[in-house]
Amino acid sequence: MIIVLKKDATETDLKHIVETVREWGFNTSVSQGVERTVIGIIGDESLLRGKPLEIFPGVESVLRVLKPYKLASSEFHADRTRVLVPAVVEGEAPAEIGGREITVIAGPCSVETREMLFEMAEFVKKNGAKILRAGAFKPRTSPYSFQGLGEEALKYLSEVRKEVGIPIITEVMDTKDVEKVAEVADVLQIGARNMQNFNLLRAVGRIDKPVLIKRGLSATLEELLMSAEYVLSEGNNKVILCERGIRTFETFTRNTVDISAVPVIKRESHLPVMVDPSHGTGHWDLVTPMACAAVAAGADGIIVELHPRPEEALSDGPQALLPKRFAALMEQIGSVARAMGRSV
Amino acid sequence: MIIVLKKDATETDLKHIVETVREWGFNTSVSQGVERTVIGIIGDESLLRGKPLEIFPGVESVLRVLKPYKLASSEFHADRTRVLVPAVVEGEAPAEIGGREITVIAGPCSVETREMLFEMAEFVKKNGAKILRAGAFKPRTSPYSFQGLGEEALKYLSEVRKEVGIPIITEVMDTKDVEKVAEVADVLQIGARNMQNFNLLRAVGRIDKPVLIKRGLSATLEELLMSAEYVLSEGNNKVILCERGIRTFETFTRNTVDISAVPVIKRESHLPVMVDPSHGTGHWDLVTPMACAAVAAGADGIIVELHPRPEEALSDGPQALLPKRFAALMEQIGSVARAMGRSV
Amino acid sequence: MIIVLKKDATETDLKHIVETVREWGFNTSVSQGVERTVIGIIGDESLLRGKPLEIFPGVESVLRVLKPYKLASSEFHADRTRVLVPAVVEGEAPAEIGGREITVIAGPCSVETREMLFEMAEFVKKNGAKILRAGAFKPRTSPYSFQGLGEEALKYLSEVRKEVGIPIITEVMDTKDVEKVAEVADVLQIGARNMQNFNLLRAVGRIDKPVLIKRGLSATLEELLMSAEYVLSEGNNKVILCERGIRTFETFTRNTVDISAVPVIKRESHLPVMVDPSHGTGHWDLVTPMACAAVAAGADGIIVELHPRPEEALSDGPQALLPKRFAALMEQIGSVARAMGRSV
Amino acid sequence: MIIVLKKDATETDLKHIVETVREWGFNTSVSQGVERTVIGIIGDESLLRGKPLEIFPGVESVLRVLKPYKLASSEFHADRTRVLVPAVVEGEAPAEIGGREITVIAGPCSVETREMLFEMAEFVKKNGAKILRAGAFKPRTSPYSFQGLGEEALKYLSEVRKEVGIPIITEVMDTKDVEKVAEVADVLQIGARNMQNFNLLRAVGRIDKPVLIKRGLSATLEELLMSAEYVLSEGNNKVILCERGIRTFETFTRNTVDISAVPVIKRESHLPVMVDPSHGTGHWDLVTPMACAAVAAGADGIIVELHPRPEEALSDGPQALLPKRFAALMEQIGSVARAMGRSV
Repeated sequence: MIIVLKKDATETDLKHIVETVREWGFNTSVSQGVERTVIGIIGDESLLRGKPLEIFPGVESVLRVLKPYKLASSEFHADRTRVLVPAVVEGEAPAEIGGREITVIAGPCSVETREMLFEMAEFVKKNGAKILRAGAFKPRTSPYSFQGLGEEALKYLSEVRKEVGIPIITEVMDTKDVEKVAEVADVLQIGARNMQNFNLLRAVGRIDKPVLIKRGLSATLEELLMSAEYVLSEGNNKVILCERGIRTFETFTRNTVDISAVPVIKRESHLPVMVDPSHGTGHWDLVTPMACAAVAAGADGIIVELHPRPEEALSDGPQALLPKRFAALMEQIGSVARAMGRSV
Repeated sequence: MIIVLKKDATETDLKHIVETVREWGFNTSVSQGVERTVIGIIGDESLLRGKPLEIFPGVESVLRVLKPYKLASSEFHADRTRVLVPAVVEGEAPAEIGGREITVIAGPCSVETREMLFEMAEFVKKNGAKILRAGAFKPRTSPYSFQGLGEEALKYLSEVRKEVGIPIITEVMDTKDVEKVAEVADVLQIGARNMQNFNLLRAVGRIDKPVLIKRGLSATLEELLMSAEYVLSEGNNKVILCERGIRTFETFTRNTVDISAVPVIKRESHLPVMVDPSHGTGHWDLVTPMACAAVAAGADGIIVELHPRPEEALSDGPQALLPKRFAALMEQIGSVARAMGRSV
Repeated sequence: MIIVLKKDATETDLKHIVETVREWGFNTSVSQGVERTVIGIIGDESLLRGKPLEIFPGVESVLRVLKPYKLASSEFHADRTRVLVPAVVEGEAPAEIGGREITVIAGPCSVETREMLFEMAEFVKKNGAKILRAGAFKPRTSPYSFQGLGEEALKYLSEVRKEVGIPIITEVMDTKDVEKVAEVADVLQIGARNMQNFNLLRAVGRIDKPVLIKRGLSATLEELLMSAEYVLSEGNNKVILCERGIRTFETFTRNTVDISAVPVIKRESHLPVMVDPSHGTGHWDLVTPMACAAVAAGADGIIVELHPRPEEALSDGPQALLPKRFAALMEQIGSVARAMGRSV
Repeated sequence: MIIVLKKDATETDLKHIVETVREWGFNTSVSQGVERTVIGIIGDESLLRGKPLEIFPGVESVLRVLKPYKLASSEFHADRTRVLVPAVVEGEAPAEIGGREITVIAGPCSVETREMLFEMAEFVKKNGAKILRAGAFKPRTSPYSFQGLGEEALKYLSEVRKEVGIPIITEVMDTKDVEKVAEVADVLQIGARNMQNFNLLRAVGRIDKPVLIKRGLSATLEELLMSAEYVLSEGNNKVILCERGIRTFETFTRNTVDISAVPVIKRESHLPVMVDPSHGTGHWDLVTPMACAAVAAGADGIIVELHPRPEEALSDGPQALLPKRFAALMEQIGSVARAMGRSV
């Protein structure tokens, strides 16, 4: 941590800071510049982070030297993390997120009926998706919208998982549901609106299942990494990050997919990163180009929504791909993956 | 709901939409314009909201006629809602949020020690605050930061409440804590990061205590009203809204306090609205000007943080007012309130 | 400037930086911390600003010690600047922006007709506005919208100025028009879309008339101060800053008025600061509450639009106050000003 | 245009609106819904756009049916526009922006010296760039930063163009420089900060050279298309759009590149669209992944900065690629282009 003093800071101000910081067990190095005095604090910066150094008399600003995430940082863990999702069918290969292969997660937004779920599960498995997505608990802006089938949906998910033989990812919204969802799901999803639901992050940090964390609507990438840190610090290191669009002033798209999140996370962290172009754009016709962009930027996977009859979807119909368009998407991202030296 | 067709939409497209909408039980009125055909749908718009009309062939855009909130809207409830917080001390007047008087909620960011809590409670009560704020459970970006004293803090809050005789507001972060917190607190706070924790909103909608909902960091005011709608639709109509700053690109302030939220909410809703200039700005020297601005814009109250020794605060020290500065703030907002025909 | 090295930076990296920086004529102070090596650079930071220190091998980040503005900073000029706009009528007091009095600038969005301009000029002067605003050149998003009457409008402005006896502010959009506009206007306005039209800023820096700079739609306050620096560095120190709303995701308002810009600028700079609640909100019913908020936060003035018949306005009708509502606004901000120890 | 009336609008309100709109020469169709009365206005919507319908008594909201751009819209011009930049060397093929081939524009941020300019021009031509970029006039946030060599740079550009045989793109910042720049440049660039400098847009609309318009830092895509409309409406239809990052709250990147701008513009408009990952990210290590993403999303070209010795760059060094890295980028986007059925 570095403290920059105001131009008119006094000797007393300087002394007060140096003494306080030393009392806390840190060393200091004071450097008298042409226009400013600067105090370097030497010691474990993480112990300093809570301290309100900004308000000591004479302080103009406080500059952080270290990044606040540790377990999530690429410095901590030089090799890239590969999250394995074991196959449901004996003998099939596990899905590996963060390796050479690009993992596709696909499925309907919500579990609407048992029949539709099975139809989609079979379709996406046949077309190369490694994991099935489908919401049982749906976070909806309006209390009057379809809220998901809840436990009934979990039952269907459990059945489709075994019968079709495909691992499941589904969202958990409440600490009290974590166990219940973890019994069914192979991967637990923390939704964008819960990215900073710290109790929930801690709860999924204590189970032994992969966790996919979606970036919050106005979360910085540093905050996303700090949310991963919550899960990691509880002992669960199977964390997957997911860019799903941030909120900006643009109105043609539901959100603005920040594709640069992919190379930034790859530089800052060892954790795998996926992109959700369905929620990111909100319009089915933008999903395939953005999926291709994500793969070209180095994403470890994509997560997309499809629906057999989008006109009848109970949630997020406008962003759902028709099955035939999903098949075309798989082909196109396959080409891009090969161009990047990877495969789907 | 109004559907605008594409220039090149066909008769078949038009027919398909009209027929589908009629099957759903709505009437339609088709208007052939110079450049576009427009279909008006007549019936209960709320039943239409989930439907993905955007993806019907030939549709260019779908225009919403009605606002999605009902119970929270000023249309629903012509008089302004006044939320009463009963006094702890027999014989004292209740705090009334949404009336002529401007309510001040003040206290430390977190409960740090029993002693400091009592010191602050006495000070703020003596200086005109009607409700004491102090966090027991603290949502922190980093798992390594002080997370609040939790249940120990609830105990201190319960004691200070009775002994000093001041109602308490404190944050609840988890559905499983709602009961526990409601036993102690006079007002439950839903923090900005939980504004769209819909399970939590429903849970506080089922208790009989006032609820203060903070606007999320990137929430629109419509979404804030929809979160209120969750609480109201469960039967709890003691809802207070709170503007606490939104996230923008500006860096001098921690957030950007959207003061215009005050007159917008007053126009759109009957619910009272407060402003939190401490979190909104992140810097103690900006708190008083922004508190005055909030009162001048018509806010029903403000919520501010203070600390006896901000240098030692365990959370949010830079935005904490010294007690003497809080006293000065009370005087200044008193003047502004009188200028607006109100009182503090 | 402070350079933080990467954890794995080598001795060679360190030596290369230290030597390069010394070649540039700076001293360095190297501090070996627990986790990082930090290099302090001692010398005139402004000479370093262009240098891409970030890309030297081994560098993790570069921390700025000083703020980039000088002439605009409160450090440079301890007293607050008061910009005088001389009265048009002999014997009348000049308008003083930045003093005890709050200056109101009012008028129609555009000069539409000579008659309407005179009507409004007389009305606002009688009701306490010190300066008349009205656009001759209008920056419009669409080439098909009314673009202002241009030179014809300048002629009317010149006439109304003399006949009604009120100083004029009007926008200049093009370097080639600066002289022409400066012949008529008492204050030149740089619009939000031109806040970083650096040639234009330099051009108005070379004339001897006050300049009001509106904050750009996505400009940080630091950038606003840097735009002021352009004008100041050319020798014109009569600069007024104006907050007029920034672009966010909120849709109830046209822009989000950042009222905290007022106390931030007052702390960072000696320049006076005004607020434009008309453009800031885009809706007439929000103008008065936000004008009151601006005054309560310490603004040195406000700038508002009115129109005798908003239904017929050629630009920005929805945000124009009716004359009678403007009169009410004057009364209300008068009360708030008195509460703040100032006057209108 | 569709007008939604308030629930409590009166018959008089309705009559007043219908009569006024008819006086303006439009027809109306009134539809009495369950909760709202809705008025459809039939006629040329563009003539209505300036009218402040929002403020008529009884009006709740006004819904736009048509998009405000015409000449720029894909509806106006069914085929995609291909902008040709004639070769400098006789016999060489012109660069075609918007066709099957992906056009790469590359060069240093600024013209710094004649020698470096020649070195870079030769390098980029040899490595497949079709157009050389280099700034003569530089818009800089600080008046104390390097502002470009101006006319001296134009001279060098003219020389390098002929001697190396590569077309030139350079920025024009001022209406008074348009002619001068157009004499040298093959393509004129409108910078992000001038995207809404409407006089400048009109001025480049009157010359017969291609114009590349960069999206403003907080411009919506609709506004970008409206800026194109300014140029098109003056008769110049050689317009290229360029996404270069928008301003958000994220701090790891200088801006947030909105890759979804590419498919949105392709849907909404017939104009070609490029991406600038150098300004978009601000960091050289993010340039190649984002260039690949742009190509995968369907961009018609990319524009990148390189520098022989980024450590010595006078502007934007941190985002400049080393020549060898530029060569690698060309290879990588070549692979992606082929995967998309295109070439570089």
